[in-house]
Amino acid sequence: MSATETLTVEDKKTKSLTMRALVFQGKHQIGLKEVPIPTPGYGEVVMRVTLTTICGTDLHILRGEYPVKPGLILGHEPVGVIHEIGPGVTGYEIGERVLVGAITPCGQCNFCLSGNWSQCGGPIGGWKFGNTIHGAQAEYLLVPHAQANLAKIPDDLTDEQVVLLADIASTGFSAAESADLKLGDTVAVFAQGPIGLCATAGAKLKGAGLIIGVESDPVRQEFARSMGAQVVLNHEKVDVVEEIRKLTHGRGVDVAIEALGTQATFENALKILRPGGTLSSLGVYSGKLSVPLEPFAAGLGDYKIVTTLCPGGKERMRRLIELVQRGHVDLRMLLTHHFSLDQIVEAYQLFGERRDGVIKVAIKP
Amino acid sequence: MSATETLTVEDKKTKSLTMRALVFQGKHQIGLKEVPIPTPGYGEVVMRVTLTTICGTDLHILRGEYPVKPGLILGHEPVGVIHEIGPGVTGYEIGERVLVGAITPCGQCNFCLSGNWSQCGGPIGGWKFGNTIHGAQAEYLLVPHAQANLAKIPDDLTDEQVVLLADIASTGFSAAESADLKLGDTVAVFAQGPIGLCATAGAKLKGAGLIIGVESDPVRQEFARSMGAQVVLNHEKVDVVEEIRKLTHGRGVDVAIEALGTQATFENALKILRPGGTLSSLGVYSGKLSVPLEPFAAGLGDYKIVTTLCPGGKERMRRLIELVQRGHVDLRMLLTHHFSLDQIVEAYQLFGERRDGVIKVAIKP
Amino acid sequence: MSATETLTVEDKKTKSLTMRALVFQGKHQIGLKEVPIPTPGYGEVVMRVTLTTICGTDLHILRGEYPVKPGLILGHEPVGVIHEIGPGVTGYEIGERVLVGAITPCGQCNFCLSGNWSQCGGPIGGWKFGNTIHGAQAEYLLVPHAQANLAKIPDDLTDEQVVLLADIASTGFSAAESADLKLGDTVAVFAQGPIGLCATAGAKLKGAGLIIGVESDPVRQEFARSMGAQVVLNHEKVDVVEEIRKLTHGRGVDVAIEALGTQATFENALKILRPGGTLSSLGVYSGKLSVPLEPFAAGLGDYKIVTTLCPGGKERMRRLIELVQRGHVDLRMLLTHHFSLDQIVEAYQLFGERRDGVIKVAIKP
Amino acid sequence: MSATETLTVEDKKTKSLTMRALVFQGKHQIGLKEVPIPTPGYGEVVMRVTLTTICGTDLHILRGEYPVKPGLILGHEPVGVIHEIGPGVTGYEIGERVLVGAITPCGQCNFCLSGNWSQCGGPIGGWKFGNTIHGAQAEYLLVPHAQANLAKIPDDLTDEQVVLLADIASTGFSAAESADLKLGDTVAVFAQGPIGLCATAGAKLKGAGLIIGVESDPVRQEFARSMGAQVVLNHEKVDVVEEIRKLTHGRGVDVAIEALGTQATFENALKILRPGGTLSSLGVYSGKLSVPLEPFAAGLGDYKIVTTLCPGGKERMRRLIELVQRGHVDLRMLLTHHFSLDQIVEAYQLFGERRDGVIKVAIKP
Repeated sequence: MSATETLTVEDKKTKSLTMRALVFQGKHQIGLKEVPIPTPGYGEVVMRVTLTTICGTDLHILRGEYPVKPGLILGHEPVGVIHEIGPGVTGYEIGERVLVGAITPCGQCNFCLSGNWSQCGGPIGGWKFGNTIHGAQAEYLLVPHAQANLAKIPDDLTDEQVVLLADIASTGFSAAESADLKLGDTVAVFAQGPIGLCATAGAKLKGAGLIIGVESDPVRQEFARSMGAQVVLNHEKVDVVEEIRKLTHGRGVDVAIEALGTQATFENALKILRPGGTLSSLGVYSGKLSVPLEPFAAGLGDYKIVTTLCPGGKERMRRLIELVQRGHVDLRMLLTHHFSLDQIVEAYQLFGERRDGVIKVAIKP
Repeated sequence: MSATETLTVEDKKTKSLTMRALVFQGKHQIGLKEVPIPTPGYGEVVMRVTLTTICGTDLHILRGEYPVKPGLILGHEPVGVIHEIGPGVTGYEIGERVLVGAITPCGQCNFCLSGNWSQCGGPIGGWKFGNTIHGAQAEYLLVPHAQANLAKIPDDLTDEQVVLLADIASTGFSAAESADLKLGDTVAVFAQGPIGLCATAGAKLKGAGLIIGVESDPVRQEFARSMGAQVVLNHEKVDVVEEIRKLTHGRGVDVAIEALGTQATFENALKILRPGGTLSSLGVYSGKLSVPLEPFAAGLGDYKIVTTLCPGGKERMRRLIELVQRGHVDLRMLLTHHFSLDQIVEAYQLFGERRDGVIKVAIKP
Repeated sequence: MSATETLTVEDKKTKSLTMRALVFQGKHQIGLKEVPIPTPGYGEVVMRVTLTTICGTDLHILRGEYPVKPGLILGHEPVGVIHEIGPGVTGYEIGERVLVGAITPCGQCNFCLSGNWSQCGGPIGGWKFGNTIHGAQAEYLLVPHAQANLAKIPDDLTDEQVVLLADIASTGFSAAESADLKLGDTVAVFAQGPIGLCATAGAKLKGAGLIIGVESDPVRQEFARSMGAQVVLNHEKVDVVEEIRKLTHGRGVDVAIEALGTQATFENALKILRPGGTLSSLGVYSGKLSVPLEPFAAGLGDYKIVTTLCPGGKERMRRLIELVQRGHVDLRMLLTHHFSLDQIVEAYQLFGERRDGVIKVAIKP
Repeated sequence: MSATETLTVEDKKTKSLTMRALVFQGKHQIGLKEVPIPTPGYGEVVMRVTLTTICGTDLHILRGEYPVKPGLILGHEPVGVIHEIGPGVTGYEIGERVLVGAITPCGQCNFCLSGNWSQCGGPIGGWKFGNTIHGAQAEYLLVPHAQANLAKIPDDLTDEQVVLLADIASTGFSAAESADLKLGDTVAVFAQGPIGLCATAGAKLKGAGLIIGVESDPVRQEFARSMGAQVVLNHEKVDVVEEIRKLTHGRGVDVAIEALGTQATFENALKILRPGGTLSSLGVYSGKLSVPLEPFAAGLGDYKIVTTLCPGGKERMRRLIELVQRGHVDLRMLLTHHFSLDQIVEAYQLFGERRDGVIKVAIKP
C-alpha cells in the first residue's frame, strides 16, 4: 500500500480544516490567524509542524525592510511529521518525522542542475517558505518539491536537536565551506549572533586552527567560546584589526567571516585578511556597501569575496543531521527560550529586542 | 664545468660596466640614464634584455598614482639572454634565452608555500621588478630567485611571440582561471585594453561559450573579435546591462571579467552576473569602490568576487609558452608599435596617450 | 493555455497508436518491431525522435557483454520534437525541438542533490534509456524526469549539429573536466574512437597545450588531428611511453585520458603520467584491471585516477549546445554514415564491424 | 649582525666534529656509527636533533623492500635546534627550535611551482631525508632548502607535541584533504596503524560525520576510538563490506581511506564506496594491485582514486603546529615508547615486531 492510499475519504472528513498560523499583515503587523490547512498538489507534501523558530530575516520582514505580500504566513525552519502526501512523491510515509531546510530547491531547473540550488529558478529563488509561499510558523506547512526536500529524522534525535539545522546551522557552516577553509587556517568571525555562532562552529568543524570571535555582547561572547572561538574580541573596547594583527604575528587571517551585514564588519573583515585570503560573507546588507581599497590592495591582493545563501535540500539536511547524530555538533544551547505557537507574537518581541540573552526561540505549535 | 666558471676574470674586464636604463626620477619625470650593470649575488642571475614593453602600471607610476622610489629602473616584462649566473643557481647556462614573468616569487616563503606566489612575502610582494627592485626597461636586468623564475624559450619561438606572456597574458588568462570558468560558460569582459583582450583570449582558451566584449574604441573592438569575442558592445552607445540580459535570455553571464578598474565597469559586471556567478576582477582600482546592493542580492546571491595579480614563476611561463608553441594563442598582433630602447620616452608618450591605435609597444634594447 | 491542454481528445484519436522501434531480443538478436507509442505519466514527456545514433555500449548489449532485459528498446542519444506532455511539466510546448542527454537524472534524490547526477539513485543510475527503460532507437521516446532533461534546440542549429552532444561529446569532454585540466597542460588521449575523439576535442576546449593522440587506425588518426591532436602516435609502430617521454622532455603528461577500456591503454596512461598528474578514465573495462606499481610510484606519486560517466541533464545539454552554437566545436564530421530507422540493423552491422571508416552513424526515424 | 656571523672561527674549533647516527649498512643491517657532523652549504642549515622517531618506511628500508644506498643515515622526522646556518638563509637564528617535515621541497622547481611539492624535481623527489640524503636518526641533521623547510616551534609546545607532525600527521590528515572530504561525509579508514590513526583524526578534523575504523588489533582499536572513530570493525571477525553497508543504509561511504597498502584493504575500500565517492590511498603497495571491476562499476561509477605522499614544507608544518597549539589535535598518546639514540637498534626491533602495543617510538639523541 502506498502512502497516498492511506488517505481515505473518511480520513479527510474527520480532519480539521483550519489551522492557526502567524500571518504578516503589513509593516509591524503580525498576528495569529485561523487559515485553511493546505492540500498537497503534484510533488507536494503537507507536514504537521512540531517545532519551528523565528529568524532574523523574519524581523526584517516585520520591520518592512524585506518586502513580502501581506497575508503571507512567515517562517522557514520547520520540523514536523508528514501529514498528507501529494501524487508523484515516493519513498515517504504519513507519520514520518522530517526536517525541511529553509531553502527548498526544485532540483530540476537550470540553476539547480548547475549546483546553485539556493538560486533555484533565479536570484534567491530557493528561499520560498515565508517569502514567496506560506511559511512554517503554523500548524501545517505545504512543502513544495517534496521529493527533493524531506529529510527523515532518525528516531534517536529530538526535534530540538535538529530544528536549527534548517537555516542557521546550514548558513553558518557554509561560511567555512564556501571559503574552502583549509586545515589549520586562522579564522575571524565578525558578530556572534545565531548565524555567527554557527559560523564559528562551522570553522571548527572544518578544521580551522585559531578561531577569533568578534562580539561585544557578553552573553554571546560566552556562546562564542562554547562554539569554538579560542579568542573573543570586543570591538567596542579594542581595535579589532590591530588585535588580530598581533594575534597572527602581522600576517592576518586566512578566512574572515562576516555574519552581520554592516559596512563596519565587512570593512574590518577585509582589513585583517591576509593576501590571498577569503572574505566569506553571510550578512544581509542594506544601505550601502563599499570596498576599502587599501586593504583590498587596489584589486591586486588575490582576495576572494564569497557570499552564500543557506544551502538547502534533503541531502544537505541529511548531512547536517549526521553531524548532530555522531556528536560533532550540538546546537541545543542556542535555543535559549521556548514558546507555544499561541505565544509567538510575544516571542517575536523578545527576539526582536534581543532581550534576556536570547539567541533563538523554540516555537511549538 | 659549471656555468659560473665560464666567466673568467678576462671576460669581466672586457665587458662594459655600464648600461642604459629608463629611470623614474619623480612624478612625470623619466629618462634614459647610464647606470652600472648589476652583478648577481647568491641565487641571482643577470640577463641581457633583448625585448621588453611598457605596461599600464608603468604609466600609473609615471603619473605618481603608484608610488615607487625615484632612481628606480622601470619595467617588468623581460625577454633576454642569460648574461651572468650567481652562485646557487643550477640547470642554466650563459647564453640561454629566457622569459621571466612580471612576478618573481621566491618559492620558499609561507605565502609561496601556500600557493599564493604573487603575494610572496606579503601583499603584492611577488611584484618586484620596477616596483621594489630595478626593472626590465634596460640593457641588463638582475633576476632575483632566478632558480624559480627563468623559463627557457624554445628555439622555434621569437622574442615577440613570448614577451607578452610575462604580464598581460598571464594576468588576462588568469581571470577565467580564477573564476574557475566551466565549459560553455557565458562570459562578459569589460574593457578591451591589453589586459582585457588577453582576458577575452583566456575565456576562449578555457572553454567559454558566448563571449561578450565591452569596449567603445573601434580599434580595440576589432582586436576583441580577433581574440574571441563573438559580440562586442559599445557601452557609450547601448545599455550594456540591458543588451547582455537580452543576449542571455534574461539569465545573465556566468562569469563577468572586470579589466579596467573603475566603479562603472565593476558595477556593470555585477549587474549582469547570474546568481551564483563569479565577478573576476583584474582592474587596479583607485578612489572608491562600492558594491551595488541590488544586483549583489544584498549578499544572498551566492556571488563570488575574485581578484588576481598576474601569476608568475618559471612554471607559469613554461605553460604559457607551451600554449603559444602549440598554436593555441598568438598575441603578436597586440605589439602594434616597435621602438628601440633609445626611443623609449617617445614610446611612453604614444602609449600613455593611447595614440595611433596602440595596444602594446615592443622595446628593443 | 498550458501545453497539456492543447491535446484534445480529438488529437489523441487521430494519432497512430504504434511505432517502430529497435528491440533487443537476446544476445546477438535485435530487430525492428511495431510497439505501442508510450504515453507520458506525471513529470514525463513523449518526444518524436527525429535523429539518433548507435553507441559502443549498444554493441556491448547486443553481444551480451552488458545485460539488459529482452524486449527493451535500445539507444540513448535522442534529438526530437515534443509530442505529448505529462502533468507537472512546465515551460515546454508541443512541437518544440529538444535534445535529451543519454543520462537522465531526476534531480531530486540524494545522489543528484550531491551533484552526482549520473549516479542518480545509485550506481550508474542516471543511465536509464536503453538500459533500464525503453530507449531512443524508435519513432517515439518517453522521457522520464522531463523537467530536468529537455534541452531546447535553437532554431539555427540542425539535428546533426547536436545529436552527438547527448553522449559522446558530453562523455569525451568530461575527461578534461574531471581531470581539472589546467591551461597549458600536456595531454595524451589513448584511443581515438568516438569517445576518444571527443576527449581530444575536450582537451583542446579546456586549454591544453600539447595534445597527443594514440591510435593505429589511419582514418581515426586523421580525425584525431582534426579534433586537436598535434601529434598522433601509432602504438603498433612505436613505443608510445618512450615517445611521449621524449616529447615531454622526460617529464610525462599532466593528464592522461583513457578512452578504450583495456589493460594496455590504462597501463600506458599511467606509465606516461607525471608525478602529481591525473589519469582520467572514460573506458568501460571488462575482465581484469591491474595497476602497475612502478609507474604508480607504489602509491606515493600523488597520482589521481578519476572516472566519469557521461554527464547529463538539460543544463549540461544547454552548455554543450552553446559551445556548438558559438562555433567552438563542430562534430558533424564524426557522423560518417547515414541511415533511416528501417536500415538500423544494417547500421549496427557496419558500426559493429567498424567497416568503411565509420565513426558514428546517424539514424533518422 | 646576521645569524651566520655569530659563528666565529673560535666556535667552530670548539665544536665536536663527529656525531652518532643510525646507519643503514645493507639488508637487515643497521647500527650506530660515529660520523662527521655535516656543514651547511648555500641555502642549508644544520640542526641539532632533539627528538625523532622511526617510521614504517624505515622498516621497509631495513628489510630491503625499499632500496637506499648502504652508508645512509636513516630517519625523516626531526625536531631540533638550529645549530649552524649556511649562506643565503634568512630569518632564522642559531638556537631556535624547529620542526622539519619528512618531505623537504625546494620550492623552486617546476613541480614545486605547480603545487606538487612532494614530487619536488620528480617522482617522490620531495622525500630526501633517509632516502636520497642523510636522515634524522642522528645527533645532527643537514636540512636542504632550509628557507622553505624550517618551521619554528612556539615556546609553549614540547618536542613530543610536534614530532609526529613531520610525517604521520601530515600524511594521515592528507587523506581527508586529498579526498576533499565534505561536512557530514561518512568515512571508513582501513587499518589503524600510525598513519591510519592519523587519517582517522584527520577525517574528524575535516568535518566527517560517521567515521568507521577497520582494525583487528585490540590496542589499535582503542586508539582508533580515541582518534575519532565511532565504530571500529574487526575484519577478522566480521564481513567489513557487509557491516559498513548496513551502517550506511546500503549507500556506502563517501570517502574510503586506505592506510595499509594491501590488495585486501584497497579492494574493500572500493567495495564500500558509494558511486561518486573517493578512495583516498595512503598505503605503500608492493607486489600487485588490481582494481575489482564490479565495485568499480567497470569505470562508470564516477569513482576517484587519489594517492598522497606526505605534504611537507614549513608552511604545512606551521599549520599542523597551529592545530596542536589551539588544542584541535593531540597525538602524544601515540608515542607509546621512549628510547635514547643509543637504544635505537632495540627500538627498531620493538617497532618492527609491533610488540608491546607500540604505535610510535620517541628517540632522543
